[in-house]
Amino acid sequence: MTQKLRVYEDTKALFHLPDGVIYLDGNSLGALPLGVAERVNRVITVEWGHELIRAWNTADWYVQPRRLGDRIARLIGAEPGSVMVGDTLSLKVYQALAAALEMNAARKLILSDTGNFPTDLYMAEGLIATLGRGHQLRLVAPEAIEAALSEEIAVLYLTEVDYRTGRRHDMAKLTAKAHALGIVTVWDLAHSAGALPVDLAGAGADFAAGCTYKYLNAGPGAPAFLYVAPRHAGSARSALSGWMGHEKPFAFELGYAAASGVERMRVGTPPVLAMAALEASLDIWDRVDIAEVRAWSLDLSDLLIDEVERRCPQLKLVTPRAPTQRGSQVSFAFEGGYAAMQALIARGVIGDFRAPDIMRFGITPLYIGEDEIIRAAEIIEEVIAGEEWRRPEYQVVNAVT
Amino acid sequence: MTQKLRVYEDTKALFHLPDGVIYLDGNSLGALPLGVAERVNRVITVEWGHELIRAWNTADWYVQPRRLGDRIARLIGAEPGSVMVGDTLSLKVYQALAAALEMNAARKLILSDTGNFPTDLYMAEGLIATLGRGHQLRLVAPEAIEAALSEEIAVLYLTEVDYRTGRRHDMAKLTAKAHALGIVTVWDLAHSAGALPVDLAGAGADFAAGCTYKYLNAGPGAPAFLYVAPRHAGSARSALSGWMGHEKPFAFELGYAAASGVERMRVGTPPVLAMAALEASLDIWDRVDIAEVRAWSLDLSDLLIDEVERRCPQLKLVTPRAPTQRGSQVSFAFEGGYAAMQALIARGVIGDFRAPDIMRFGITPLYIGEDEIIRAAEIIEEVIAGEEWRRPEYQVVNAVT
Repeated sequence: MTQKLRVYEDTKALFHLPDGVIYLDGNSLGALPLGVAERVNRVITVEWGHELIRAWNTADWYVQPRRLGDRIARLIGAEPGSVMVGDTLSLKVYQALAAALEMNAARKLILSDTGNFPTDLYMAEGLIATLGRGHQLRLVAPEAIEAALSEEIAVLYLTEVDYRTGRRHDMAKLTAKAHALGIVTVWDLAHSAGALPVDLAGAGADFAAGCTYKYLNAGPGAPAFLYVAPRHAGSARSALSGWMGHEKPFAFELGYAAASGVERMRVGTPPVLAMAALEASLDIWDRVDIAEVRAWSLDLSDLLIDEVERRCPQLKLVTPRAPTQRGSQVSFAFEGGYAAMQALIARGVIGDFRAPDIMRFGITPLYIGEDEIIRAAEIIEEVIAGEEWRRPEYQVVNAVT
Repeated sequence: MTQKLRVYEDTKALFHLPDGVIYLDGNSLGALPLGVAERVNRVITVEWGHELIRAWNTADWYVQPRRLGDRIARLIGAEPGSVMVGDTLSLKVYQALAAALEMNAARKLILSDTGNFPTDLYMAEGLIATLGRGHQLRLVAPEAIEAALSEEIAVLYLTEVDYRTGRRHDMAKLTAKAHALGIVTVWDLAHSAGALPVDLAGAGADFAAGCTYKYLNAGPGAPAFLYVAPRHAGSARSALSGWMGHEKPFAFELGYAAASGVERMRVGTPPVLAMAALEASLDIWDRVDIAEVRAWSLDLSDLLIDEVERRCPQLKLVTPRAPTQRGSQVSFAFEGGYAAMQALIARGVIGDFRAPDIMRFGITPLYIGEDEIIRAAEIIEEVIAGEEWRRPEYQVVNAVT
């Protein structure tokens, strides 16, 4: 049996972290696990290069989306065989929402909050226009969600952890209340998977989706995953019914027949090179305890909050102080937030900015420890209290931030 | 200016081809260009590993889907700025078909043929069920398509080159006739891009999509591409309206507003590692003349047809003999086709089998020449005429073929 890894103490050395950088943006793009380059290279040179088309069998490319799904399932409290990897998070929430709406066809309202990540809302808009049957997306403030649940609502459609503030919804409580009112739930785990223990089965969630390029460290544009509760997996329809979700993809039949279970949520040919990177990144996750990651994350977050509040009264904490109510990031509102983040990045403290005024710092205990947090706070103090952020070069807006 | 490469003579050395293998399956998964491993490794170690989140700007990850689209545009006769890379072909035909149906909302019929690749048909079925407005998919035999065009049809939805037989539709003629009847066209170029010159602009095509893992050699699960005619790009709606297709993705607005032009057909975060492989594979395509590739492809196809027909009367050619009517593959029907293909693969001649009885050989002149074709024909003769295919070990059906 493989030895467990101690968080940070054993795991930091498994990542490449550039000199002079304190990386507090693992909630946007996780750092590079050292095993990735070799793994991807092997898939390119040996599996693709040498095995060629035979690798669909000999290297198990075909079954990889499900095998990877099972490895992610362990991190999100999902039943074995309930998670499928592929595509992007935007597409996976679309599939989930389309299936959920069909399960509740007599109702026309989708309830979400203004803290949901925009692509989730945009995909819902696109789906509503395609359906053309008078569905509506109702948005309320995050704290108003519970009171807004009613028997009018078809689907509760939320991201568990707010991408700007780090505020966390109570998944179990909201799911239970939703179910009591006949509402189907779709949870976006973008800022949850690898950030904190998730218990989809325990909460009774219906559908969930997430990405793997943030806390799971699978690389830029790494594939997403989709969870379908086993009780729905045999009946939920995939609106994106591609050949890999067919019960017999290689029979090349003219008509669609859904595969059994979550396999039906596959769409097209899986992204083999990207899955190789995910395989390597999950090698670390297989050996750490997510509860230990969470404990460290909360300690480091508290430390960052204390240090920054003490040093920079100009920054206003927007992340909830109560540990149970937050994810694994610390965010501050600051009027000069955009320029301040540019100045921090120039000093090697990489976080990111989210409009209109949020400075966001991700806490990733696999490769961030107390020393990094304290050093980051010192630099934040220099940039903010020292007014370094006012320099003209930091006011220039980049194409992508 | 970079020197042009002579097809095969200069290009063969740019691919990794395993010893003892004659690879006639580049129409399923192209062979590995030697530049890929280094390029992907650099993206992993330097861009992701060192630049981290900054690489969205410093390494141009954000603009890459469009830049790659422009490089593919040249190969398919598309206008600059009309092609976007991302997702999978299944998803791209879905986007195209959904947009095309909306442009022709008074009509309810989608016309396709029984030679279309199943995922195209399945995605149409899924879309029709989601629309729930009585659309129908009408399938006719490939040769009956022209006669089936009528003012009832909303969208003509075809794959230019048949994945089994290699039969090629006349895109210009069918598109012109379709337009005269008020029909919008969606062309799948899976077996066209990199196989033969395509002239989307000249044909007046409305939408087209294709994949890059076949003739373009970008690797297993490489991203797809979508073409939208410039005259439609400002009005076509993306049913899969993800944040990357928003006019200001990083403003994080709650409501969707489509980007101008084909940019709106982006969905989620682009697959950066897979795009790196595509970059490297297009380095070869940038330097060859697709007309020269086509000329070689037809010569090699004729040679394979002649050699096999002479040696194996049991194999019945199902690919059209007329060069203008075929793509870049040669297919034979044979009752024992499945077992025969297993036997050929065991002998190092890799083609593939398509149900019910098709043995398919892809012709890829970048790395296949006359010697390989003649040697392959000799082995085909031994396997078929010598009855090697009847051995019990070749009758076992694999999970994926």
